[in-house]
Amino acid sequence: MLKKRALLIIDMQNDFVLPTAPQAVAGAIDIICNIQILLHSFREKNLPVFHIIREYRADGSDIEHTRRSDFLIRSYCVPNTNGAKIISELTPLDNEYIIVKNRFSGFMQTELDFILRQLNVQELVICGIQYPNCIRATVFDGVSLGYDVTLIADATGAQSEEWLNQIFLI
Amino acid sequence: MLKKRALLIIDMQNDFVLPTAPQAVAGAIDIICNIQILLHSFREKNLPVFHIIREYRADGSDIEHTRRSDFLIRSYCVPNTNGAKIISELTPLDNEYIIVKNRFSGFMQTELDFILRQLNVQELVICGIQYPNCIRATVFDGVSLGYDVTLIADATGAQSEEWLNQIFLI
Repeated sequence: MLKKRALLIIDMQNDFVLPTAPQAVAGAIDIICNIQILLHSFREKNLPVFHIIREYRADGSDIEHTRRSDFLIRSYCVPNTNGAKIISELTPLDNEYIIVKNRFSGFMQTELDFILRQLNVQELVICGIQYPNCIRATVFDGVSLGYDVTLIADATGAQSEEWLNQIFLI
Repeated sequence: MLKKRALLIIDMQNDFVLPTAPQAVAGAIDIICNIQILLHSFREKNLPVFHIIREYRADGSDIEHTRRSDFLIRSYCVPNTNGAKIISELTPLDNEYIIVKNRFSGFMQTELDFILRQLNVQELVICGIQYPNCIRATVFDGVSLGYDVTLIADATGAQSEEWLNQIFLI
């Protein structure tokens, strides 16, 4: 029997993707088309889609301490700002899930695992940005929690292509 | 040195507090005044206040499986409904924290502990509803994570007063 799949799209928000954004990730623009193809495929099959995003309260109270001083000078991904929004090319449909995370892993202190279990999802297909931190952490936690995890390398980006190899050290 | 305190107000939402609400907790109305006194005191001292609330997506994907079948017949605490709102007597100020939980404990898969650490809070003052589940679970997790926890019994309610003694079995 085919295992039930879900698509996890990570951090494709204006503040990380737009070239002029405060936290622009160089490799983000190039993967939009491939993520759109994945998204279209999951929508066609009526399989669950999770848009996993970062958000930080404006006072910096929920951000990693390593990022906090920079954030307080030049904030990003603040709820209800344009920068925190998912890029228009990947706008979620009403029946898709938006999961807000404050750390690298989409699983850390979020309801992601609750929902995946409820939906009987066994396999995760992961894409988005960026390899060395959010993608890697989410892949590791997904594997640790017992999911079959597939990373779509052509739909995954990073600040530098030098980091590409890192993801394959798992 | 006095330890830094935070107030945690749990589940004081219309769907749990209003007498005609689908999930009305009998003891909720009687504690509103005492919670207001606590809230006033924390605001006067400029100490952090956390409004911890339940929310469930309308499709039931993030609710406990034990509650799901009832929820799908008669939902409650759905985001952006009046029922999910905090009661008007305890309306949060802009600088107060709202934490959304899907389970009993305010700590489970939420950013509560991230923020408490960032704010250097060492002591939690807990009130709200109800003793046997959300209050108890949050108290236990708070203690387990190393916080000093004070439960304000006169500002804590339950469906039945018989359950009052349960909280003191910690």
